[in-house]
Amino acid sequence: MKTFNIRAVETRDRSRLEEIVKASVNFNQEEVKTALELVGEALENGEESGYIIKIIESTGSSLSIAGYACYGPTPLTQGVYDLYWIVIDPTAQGKGFGRTLIADVEQDVLRRGGRMLLIETSSQDSYDGTIRFYEKSGYREVARVRDFYRIGDDKLIFSKNLVKTP
Amino acid sequence: MKTFNIRAVETRDRSRLEEIVKASVNFNQEEVKTALELVGEALENGEESGYIIKIIESTGSSLSIAGYACYGPTPLTQGVYDLYWIVIDPTAQGKGFGRTLIADVEQDVLRRGGRMLLIETSSQDSYDGTIRFYEKSGYREVARVRDFYRIGDDKLIFSKNLVKTP
Repeated sequence: MKTFNIRAVETRDRSRLEEIVKASVNFNQEEVKTALELVGEALENGEESGYIIKIIESTGSSLSIAGYACYGPTPLTQGVYDLYWIVIDPTAQGKGFGRTLIADVEQDVLRRGGRMLLIETSSQDSYDGTIRFYEKSGYREVARVRDFYRIGDDKLIFSKNLVKTP
Repeated sequence: MKTFNIRAVETRDRSRLEEIVKASVNFNQEEVKTALELVGEALENGEESGYIIKIIESTGSSLSIAGYACYGPTPLTQGVYDLYWIVIDPTAQGKGFGRTLIADVEQDVLRRGGRMLLIETSSQDSYDGTIRFYEKSGYREVARVRDFYRIGDDKLIFSKNLVKTP
C-alpha cells in the first residue's frame, strides 16, 4: 500500500510549507525568506517563474504534508536542472520521504529532457546529514567555492548525471 | 587628461547596449536575451533588482559608450558579489576600457562592504581572451562544473579576494 502522495504545490499549502521551512534548523532567516519567496513565485507564475514545487504528503491515518522540493531549469544551460531545496519536516524525517521525493524529482527532470541535476549546499557541520543524504542518493561533490556563504563556510556543488553521457 | 567616464546606466543607453551585446561574438541568442533582460530590470527597478549596471564611455572626439558591466550582491552570501557580465564593444577593445571598468567595479564592491568578486564563464575556446583578461586582472579559477552549459562546455568560476582575509 502506497503511504505517500506527490503532487504540485497549491495555494492552500502555503502556511504548512512556511511551518516546515521555519522548523528546519539549517535555514537562517534570510534563507527562510528566500525559500518562501520562491514558493510565492511558483504559486503566482507557475513554471514561468523558473521554479517547480512538488509536495510529498503521507496518506496514513491523517493526510499531512511531510515536505517539498523546489527545482527548475538552470538558466543558460542545455539540460541542467538545479534542485534549490528539498525540505522534510523534522518530525517526518527518517521515513524515506526525502528519498522518495528526490527520486520523483529526478524522473520529472528526465521527462522534461534534463540530463543533470545540481545541488548547492553549505560546508557547515550542520549540513553533514544533508550531504550524506545526497551522497546516498548518488550525488557527488564536483566543485567547491571557498568562503562563499561566509568566511569559513564554503559552497559545495553536488551533481548527478541522470543519463549516460556518450 | 581622462579620456573615459564611468556612470550609472540610463534609459537612453538601452539601444546602444543592445548593439554592443549583439556585436559580442561570444553571446548566443539566449545569452543576448538574458543580458538585455537584466538591463531592463536594472532600469526598471534600480538596485532593488539585484543588478547594478555601470557604463564606460570614451570622452574623446565624440562621446560614445564603449561597454558596460553588470554586477550585484550574490544572494545568501555575506559580502560576495557576482560580476554577471562585462562587455566591451569589439571596436573599442584593446584600449583599456575593460581594465578600467573592472577596477571601478571592484572599488564599488569594496565601498558597499563586499569582500569577494566571482565571475562565471565558459570553458569554450572562444572565451580564451576573456579568461586571459580575468587572470591579468587578478582573478583565479577556483572551481569548475564539467558539462554545465552543454556536454563538453564547462562552467569555470573565477574569484578575487578584494580584502585580505585574516
